[in-house]
Amino acid sequence: MIVLKKSTQTELDRVQAVIKKELVSEKIIQEIYQYIFKAEGKKTRALLCLLASKSKEKKSRDRVNLASIIELLHTATLVHDDVVDESELRRGTRSVNQVWTNSYSVLMGDFIYSKAFILMVKLGTPSILDELAKATNDIARGEIIQLDLLEKKYIKLQDLLKVSYLKTGRLFEASSKTGAMLANKSKEEIKIFGLLGKTLGTTFQIQDDILDYKAFKLDTGKPAFKDFKEGKITFPLYFALKNSSAKDKKFLMNKLGQSKISKKDQNKIYSLIQNEKTQKEINALLEKYSQETLKHLHKLKHDACYNEMLNLINFSKIRKK
Amino acid sequence: MIVLKKSTQTELDRVQAVIKKELVSEKIIQEIYQYIFKAEGKKTRALLCLLASKSKEKKSRDRVNLASIIELLHTATLVHDDVVDESELRRGTRSVNQVWTNSYSVLMGDFIYSKAFILMVKLGTPSILDELAKATNDIARGEIIQLDLLEKKYIKLQDLLKVSYLKTGRLFEASSKTGAMLANKSKEEIKIFGLLGKTLGTTFQIQDDILDYKAFKLDTGKPAFKDFKEGKITFPLYFALKNSSAKDKKFLMNKLGQSKISKKDQNKIYSLIQNEKTQKEINALLEKYSQETLKHLHKLKHDACYNEMLNLINFSKIRKK
Repeated sequence: MIVLKKSTQTELDRVQAVIKKELVSEKIIQEIYQYIFKAEGKKTRALLCLLASKSKEKKSRDRVNLASIIELLHTATLVHDDVVDESELRRGTRSVNQVWTNSYSVLMGDFIYSKAFILMVKLGTPSILDELAKATNDIARGEIIQLDLLEKKYIKLQDLLKVSYLKTGRLFEASSKTGAMLANKSKEEIKIFGLLGKTLGTTFQIQDDILDYKAFKLDTGKPAFKDFKEGKITFPLYFALKNSSAKDKKFLMNKLGQSKISKKDQNKIYSLIQNEKTQKEINALLEKYSQETLKHLHKLKHDACYNEMLNLINFSKIRKK
Repeated sequence: MIVLKKSTQTELDRVQAVIKKELVSEKIIQEIYQYIFKAEGKKTRALLCLLASKSKEKKSRDRVNLASIIELLHTATLVHDDVVDESELRRGTRSVNQVWTNSYSVLMGDFIYSKAFILMVKLGTPSILDELAKATNDIARGEIIQLDLLEKKYIKLQDLLKVSYLKTGRLFEASSKTGAMLANKSKEEIKIFGLLGKTLGTTFQIQDDILDYKAFKLDTGKPAFKDFKEGKITFPLYFALKNSSAKDKKFLMNKLGQSKISKKDQNKIYSLIQNEKTQKEINALLEKYSQETLKHLHKLKHDACYNEMLNLINFSKIRKK
């Protein structure tokens, strides 16, 4: 758990309340909407935004609203992602495409996206709208590039870094940056908050990729090998492929993307990921982005968010869920 | 064809140019984007916006940009609709979900939506952003309600009018209203332009529903009975069900939603729609909305768009494509 001030935790709880307060007159929409937001996510992006927007002058209400907008945007991407990935579970419960259909997921995603934009307009800061519209566009770009990479056998580390920036880092960056914008921080500070969000997002994504494999031996609340079964080459697999013998490499590429994998093969995949050199390289990458994030935070020593942001950064690389 | 001034036609051509100018660095995205916009639509909503925004002071560039934004929003909904309806064709060519996959359609739709929002922010008029964000949300709402209606056997005319307003009338309304807003027209004029767009959109949707059946005997450029095969009760079918004998009603409900229908059954469905009373009622409904639209236009007699708008309204109820 991330150690937070009581006031921050209260604000984070209010994000959930703001989101759930949204009422729709149509029963079917209300039903799916409530279903989606019943399962609470970690709200890391909302928290990042709340921390970055701390300031003496800025009213808590606007900050909670911006954090809620970001959580809505993030949830809309998840609802659409579940269609793309044909996921069965989301936040521990069956995903919308499973309980209803893909069609409902597509349209509910659109509903939530546009709801977020309505609230953004209400917030009334054009620079924040601009940043969030661009981030939303970049997330879609990242997802399309990732889809396209599924067809490719050889992937460069650069490709993986680009995709993880666009699909994860970009919204972390926007959450942090727009938080600082809302608090009327200086141009220089806004820039630092943006960079901090960006590298924190990549740290977060690397740890996410690591946990997809660790879930095989550890309770992460998520099924193991989900990325692998979807045919995604993520950071750990990238290093494992690089460090494996030709035979093992062939084995991995052969199993990649198969929805059913025997226990024996799962054990083998896990042990190839656990390879010493692979673990050293993936941990070094995680550490690199974590250190970069701390470097940015170092420049914000006098900011009201400093201690809590430090906790969030440290949590991101050790989290098990 | 709608008779337009040469200058309006030039502006409409520029809409296509503005949209196609958008460059994306990733090859795959560029490829799908170009594919989507290669097939030109009728651009009725863009035209409506161009007409409503005519004024002596307002620069043509902003008006073309707003019309392009509206065309982007509309296209994004079509790309997502094709997933929902499992369509094979769009604007005469294979739909994105057919050439690529549903996943690409979902993400490209998101890409185009957010691109439209980026351009809206650039346009810099908060009231326009507000109206278009709300319209986008209402379109998703309308589509979800329509999806939900598919499960129902008894539909009220009121339900059909609500869905056709939300999924079609709403964006017509927003196109017309934001056009007038951009041209700094009076509050009263903006209201009239909104109402005109709203009823024009419903006229347009009723004619669309009629053409889905007429396509059986007439070249409309679209396959016949598409709505029927998707299980949708549209305006013509609503009246046909109301006016049919218990036996014929049973026949229609039995065939509704079937993807393959024999030629003999198609003939029977067509003749039930052609029933005199049904035709009288559907044409009366079309005429009602067309007359209402003309009534609104009547209040805009001195507006620069008057003659062309009249042509557009008259075209909407007689169009065959």
